[in-house]
Amino acid sequence: MLFENISVLKEDFTVGNGQYVGVREGKIAYCGAQPPEGDWGERFDGRRALLTPGFVNAHSHAPMVLLRGYAENLPLQRWLNEKVFPFEDRIDANSMYAGTLLAAAEMARFGVCSFTDMYMQIPTMAKAIVESGLKCNLCRGLTVFDGSAYKELSNYTDNIAFLKELDGAGDGRLKIDFCIHGEYTSHPGAVADVAAHAKEAGVHIHVHVSETQSEVQACKQRHGKTPVRYFYDLGLFDQPTTAAHCVWLEEEDFALLKEKGVTVAACPVSNMKLASGFADVPRMLEAGINVALGTDGAASNNNLNLFKDLFLFATLYKGRSGDPTVVTPAQALAAATVNGWRSQGRPDCGMIREGAPADLVVFDLDTPWMYPQTDVINNLVFAAQGSDVRLTMVDGRVIYQDGEYKTIDIEKVKFEVQKGTDAILGVVR
Amino acid sequence: MLFENISVLKEDFTVGNGQYVGVREGKIAYCGAQPPEGDWGERFDGRRALLTPGFVNAHSHAPMVLLRGYAENLPLQRWLNEKVFPFEDRIDANSMYAGTLLAAAEMARFGVCSFTDMYMQIPTMAKAIVESGLKCNLCRGLTVFDGSAYKELSNYTDNIAFLKELDGAGDGRLKIDFCIHGEYTSHPGAVADVAAHAKEAGVHIHVHVSETQSEVQACKQRHGKTPVRYFYDLGLFDQPTTAAHCVWLEEEDFALLKEKGVTVAACPVSNMKLASGFADVPRMLEAGINVALGTDGAASNNNLNLFKDLFLFATLYKGRSGDPTVVTPAQALAAATVNGWRSQGRPDCGMIREGAPADLVVFDLDTPWMYPQTDVINNLVFAAQGSDVRLTMVDGRVIYQDGEYKTIDIEKVKFEVQKGTDAILGVVR
Repeated sequence: MLFENISVLKEDFTVGNGQYVGVREGKIAYCGAQPPEGDWGERFDGRRALLTPGFVNAHSHAPMVLLRGYAENLPLQRWLNEKVFPFEDRIDANSMYAGTLLAAAEMARFGVCSFTDMYMQIPTMAKAIVESGLKCNLCRGLTVFDGSAYKELSNYTDNIAFLKELDGAGDGRLKIDFCIHGEYTSHPGAVADVAAHAKEAGVHIHVHVSETQSEVQACKQRHGKTPVRYFYDLGLFDQPTTAAHCVWLEEEDFALLKEKGVTVAACPVSNMKLASGFADVPRMLEAGINVALGTDGAASNNNLNLFKDLFLFATLYKGRSGDPTVVTPAQALAAATVNGWRSQGRPDCGMIREGAPADLVVFDLDTPWMYPQTDVINNLVFAAQGSDVRLTMVDGRVIYQDGEYKTIDIEKVKFEVQKGTDAILGVVR
Repeated sequence: MLFENISVLKEDFTVGNGQYVGVREGKIAYCGAQPPEGDWGERFDGRRALLTPGFVNAHSHAPMVLLRGYAENLPLQRWLNEKVFPFEDRIDANSMYAGTLLAAAEMARFGVCSFTDMYMQIPTMAKAIVESGLKCNLCRGLTVFDGSAYKELSNYTDNIAFLKELDGAGDGRLKIDFCIHGEYTSHPGAVADVAAHAKEAGVHIHVHVSETQSEVQACKQRHGKTPVRYFYDLGLFDQPTTAAHCVWLEEEDFALLKEKGVTVAACPVSNMKLASGFADVPRMLEAGINVALGTDGAASNNNLNLFKDLFLFATLYKGRSGDPTVVTPAQALAAATVNGWRSQGRPDCGMIREGAPADLVVFDLDTPWMYPQTDVINNLVFAAQGSDVRLTMVDGRVIYQDGEYKTIDIEKVKFEVQKGTDAILGVVR
């Protein structure tokens, strides 16, 4: 495909107008201000449109779209114990498959090319993700409520099998990560063992850290240290790690995360809606931490529209700090793109340059709310809607374009999601 | 028009399925579970769609869309003095007219049927608003930086002229309100005089109140009381009043606002982006205050998409308070609909019942993010996008439907907005 006469979001988060970007064999094969020679197949008229790198959802639980709208306005523990966990126990393979595809469709609709996901029934999810065409770092959530050693858990043998059978599937688009769900759902031995296994296998880690104040308080009571220091001491951060949330970091935590190159996946919508609080993202940025952006699951968002989180990321911390200068549009865009790619171990993605994988998004600049075009970057961060996405492409393959899902049978998926959810909840229609 | 087999948002904020709603001569003429007899003109297939009352944007400065994306990440006083005020001085009638129409288009696109607006060049704005077909309570902003009496200001004679010439225009859709911009931009004599004039004329009041902490501190230094008490003592609240923002209310203020039936127009997005803070909306609701919802101007939002504010209204105060049970979906929907209509003195609007004005919105329930449909109300508040609006109707007239603006030449408006803004900023393209 050749994008003709299109505006392009550059690596320094400025905009170049009237550009030509050619895609061939899954890669960006031409970038320039002049039309390239040769046959590029389909042409995309780029007037009044903006081409950006693909966005990355750095923390999600994709199949939780099945729980969308099911349980609201409840305190966290009641929400989890009375609603989420009993529901999750009843998700069968059909629903898991359909839910994963619905999530992939929603993410692609709103410009996400890759996501980092923690959930269960991994082979079923992997099948759906590979079919969707999206990229994903996927891990099986590990919780251990008794003293069992990691190697006694099915998670251990599963992780070995996933690495062998699923890692690199879909021409490398699927990557297997390892997981500790959180400090409060594990014990030190298991954490150390997962860390050692991850190091041996050379994989990334995905973990929930310091989401709520009570989690941090309980951890300090149990271990005399914060969750960040706890994981640091157990060696978990020796492998590249994505730490979701980090709402309640303490003084030393910022330096530890920075030292180990841990990515914080900020989830502003979910933290707000679950009343967990507002993370100190300006301080993280100041400390030089790699901050990426995540939606969390749709049970607490209730979308997988990263643009909702992007807008909040660019504005919430102004409100929280009383300082309207914190978090620039460029910092917000970096969190939603290149910082996410970096966290996934895909450093060649997230840039529009020759040779990079063609993970690309096109925004409509011709909607009423994109006028006037005094500053396209400000408009993109503060005024664009996720629905302004016209096209999402991964490795050169169109996933979504102008109302059509090219890799997903969306009508079938919606039907199966509704049927599966009704069955779980005992709803007869 | 006849909406057939459609889901309907009822007055108690539950949903009735399979309904028929007929519109005739600008009114809702039929509601029921059976198809009505007779010829109703156009039929709207309501399957997988939700019919709701029109939404009300209770605080805006519509033509500030012209400033969209122009000045970001600045402290409030620099933003106002270096950017906003100099820009506003240069807005000519053409740009004011086009800007007002662009704002109307954006609001209609996202389900707003009526808005309460404070700005300038009122006859020009009125012309655009009447043409757009939207309803509006419009007032000329009153600022007086010297000691001039209200009756010495052009605002006084203008208010008289506006009442005579513009109030009730567009078959009653346009209403003229009176305005005090804020405590810090007026003096007690002017406030008392506007209050008296409003009482004599029987009109509503629109005012900014306690938007920033420094505003409240300065008011207390000047007058020994909060802005709420100040306006209360000067009689401003004796007429129905919409008080925008109210971020920094103090103990007594809640009771005073409740006593006088003042509507608070909460503007969560603007307050967050300008770093003004987070209002104590749960406390307002507890006190029984009529809380409505506003976008504020696009210079600080940067949209007029009330759905961005609705989502934030339904979630931000959970994050602020640490209590996920505060602000229910029904309370959020009430703020965005019936409370807004009440604030405008249009108590017959905002309900789907026979005899009411046909101010109606249709949402697409068939988007991927509306599945599963476990709870349509939760989905509407927490997962719907403003772009899910398929139709916006005011007094039975379609303003927007499925990508088309029926009353606004949107291509011309976008062109004029860009041209006018470029001229103001000296941009040559």
